Amino acid sequence: MLLLHLSDVEETRWAEKFRAALAPYPVVQRGDEFAPGDVRYIFVWKPKADAFEGLGKLKAILSLGAGVDALLKHPKLPDAPMVRFVDDDLSQRMSDYVVAQVTMHHRLHSRFQADQAARRWSQLYPPAAAARCVGIMGMGVLGQDAARRLLALGFAVRSWSRTPRTIEGVEGFCGAEGFDAFLGGTDILVNLLPLTPETTGILNSDTFAKLRRGGLEGGPVIINVARGGHQREADIARALGDGTLGAASLDVFEVEPLPATSPLWDIPNCYITPHIAAISSETAGVAYYAAIIKDHEAGKPLINVVDRARGY
Amino acid sequence: MLLLHLSDVEETRWAEKFRAALAPYPVVQRGDEFAPGDVRYIFVWKPKADAFEGLGKLKAILSLGAGVDALLKHPKLPDAPMVRFVDDDLSQRMSDYVVAQVTMHHRLHSRFQADQAARRWSQLYPPAAAARCVGIMGMGVLGQDAARRLLALGFAVRSWSRTPRTIEGVEGFCGAEGFDAFLGGTDILVNLLPLTPETTGILNSDTFAKLRRGGLEGGPVIINVARGGHQREADIARALGDGTLGAASLDVFEVEPLPATSPLWDIPNCYITPHIAAISSETAGVAYYAAIIKDHEAGKPLINVVDRARGY
Repeated sequence: MLLLHLSDVEETRWAEKFRAALAPYPVVQRGDEFAPGDVRYIFVWKPKADAFEGLGKLKAILSLGAGVDALLKHPKLPDAPMVRFVDDDLSQRMSDYVVAQVTMHHRLHSRFQADQAARRWSQLYPPAAAARCVGIMGMGVLGQDAARRLLALGFAVRSWSRTPRTIEGVEGFCGAEGFDAFLGGTDILVNLLPLTPETTGILNSDTFAKLRRGGLEGGPVIINVARGGHQREADIARALGDGTLGAASLDVFEVEPLPATSPLWDIPNCYITPHIAAISSETAGVAYYAAIIKDHEAGKPLINVVDRARGY
Repeated sequence: MLLLHLSDVEETRWAEKFRAALAPYPVVQRGDEFAPGDVRYIFVWKPKADAFEGLGKLKAILSLGAGVDALLKHPKLPDAPMVRFVDDDLSQRMSDYVVAQVTMHHRLHSRFQADQAARRWSQLYPPAAAARCVGIMGMGVLGQDAARRLLALGFAVRSWSRTPRTIEGVEGFCGAEGFDAFLGGTDILVNLLPLTPETTGILNSDTFAKLRRGGLEGGPVIINVARGGHQREADIARALGDGTLGAASLDVFEVEPLPATSPLWDIPNCYITPHIAAISSETAGVAYYAAIIKDHEAGKPLINVVDRARGY
């Protein structure tokens, strides 16, 4: 039996699609009558405190999101294997966002917008993309997809990850010992890390001060498309104010929705989007998890299982 | 002998580089002492009325720009073959601009900027790039490079050109008879046409009204990176005002610099840059034309010769 545990509106939509994909395998929602001991799989997003109560025979926890940081913090999380969502459509949309922001800053959008507001015709020719070095933190499925697309556009790309990664055309750095060298050559910093105790608050004043200066006109840029917990918003506001950063594109925030009192809203060159870079699509999600359940019931191993010690 | 005819400041810089590349072949500037009858090649940008006086033995006219529309209008243009500038660096920068603007509109930048100004958190998830159809007018070197990069990002791409073009992954339309069908499936219209009598004013109300509606949220978008003569600015202002267009990104204008009195400056969703999408680099230009001169002196045919009847 598959149990769905999502927000009320979403749960019914997903349930219909899962039933169609898995029939005759039983699919239930939270409000249905069922024996918790019959549940083998739970498909979950933002679980309530009692989400896992009575689920003694769970074979796997299936996460709606690609990031499992919130799920891992649940105080009563069962010891069953946990599967992350991996999806081409999600990767594509995330890369769409990253490419749009990188190219906007590469082409000095903030400067030309300020000129336009002043009715000022002031020519400055941005160099070709190869002159910009984009540093991607996090080289999982999403980081690799973004790297591939940025390379196709002609950007110089470097990466930073926990363990060494070899990706053609990308200069790789890893671990705490490689962090400063990675930042020192980065004009545009893209965060696609999982949120773990080690990466919490990584977008802070120290990090910003180590980015390359003298490359991108106007100063280095950060793009955070991962989690609000990665960033120190007070540090970002200060860095944008004193010129340590030239611009920031933020899709995620320490508190969401971003409170109306946040100073970030009014900072020039701080580009805010309301956590819309990418969403898991129902069609892709059902196809992915229905296949995983069928395969697992047929005796095959689970794929994309979370390493709890690592945190993703 | 190679004669340079550029603006005063630029001419000296280019002359030094041409001398270094061509020595011992003679290179002269307008202010030098030389016999006009000795000039075999003229490298030219914005020629004055007497630019070609006495140049009776000209073998070729070498254009600094990729577009030769202004040159072709010179009343005393000699009948010598004319060579266009073709340059990877120029193509790359032009594509950088196009990709930045296309992805910005794809990701609904105008909407999210308006939300930010209002401190409004309103989630809307842009679809993956494949849902957007980018229609490129002009499939020369620049149009093909832009198409290739947009395809790598996952966009649907269609093209419109004077004669049929077959480019893998691009749906091709051509001629007057293919224009409406081309526009009818286009969400984001990119202009990379040469400026000819046929293409003058092509970005007008009729064209805008034929673009696909219901695709891009906020309405169809135009991006003009070719020549100001392609666009009717009064039509653009009207179309942005009444919603026929959702946005416009303009790098070129009917009169440049764009007059401070132009209504375009203040129109929301009209993104103005001061003709800075791409510039011919001196290094690339000298390498390109020095090779052409050497080859031609050695008896080889000229490359990238302008077809005057066609206008590019």
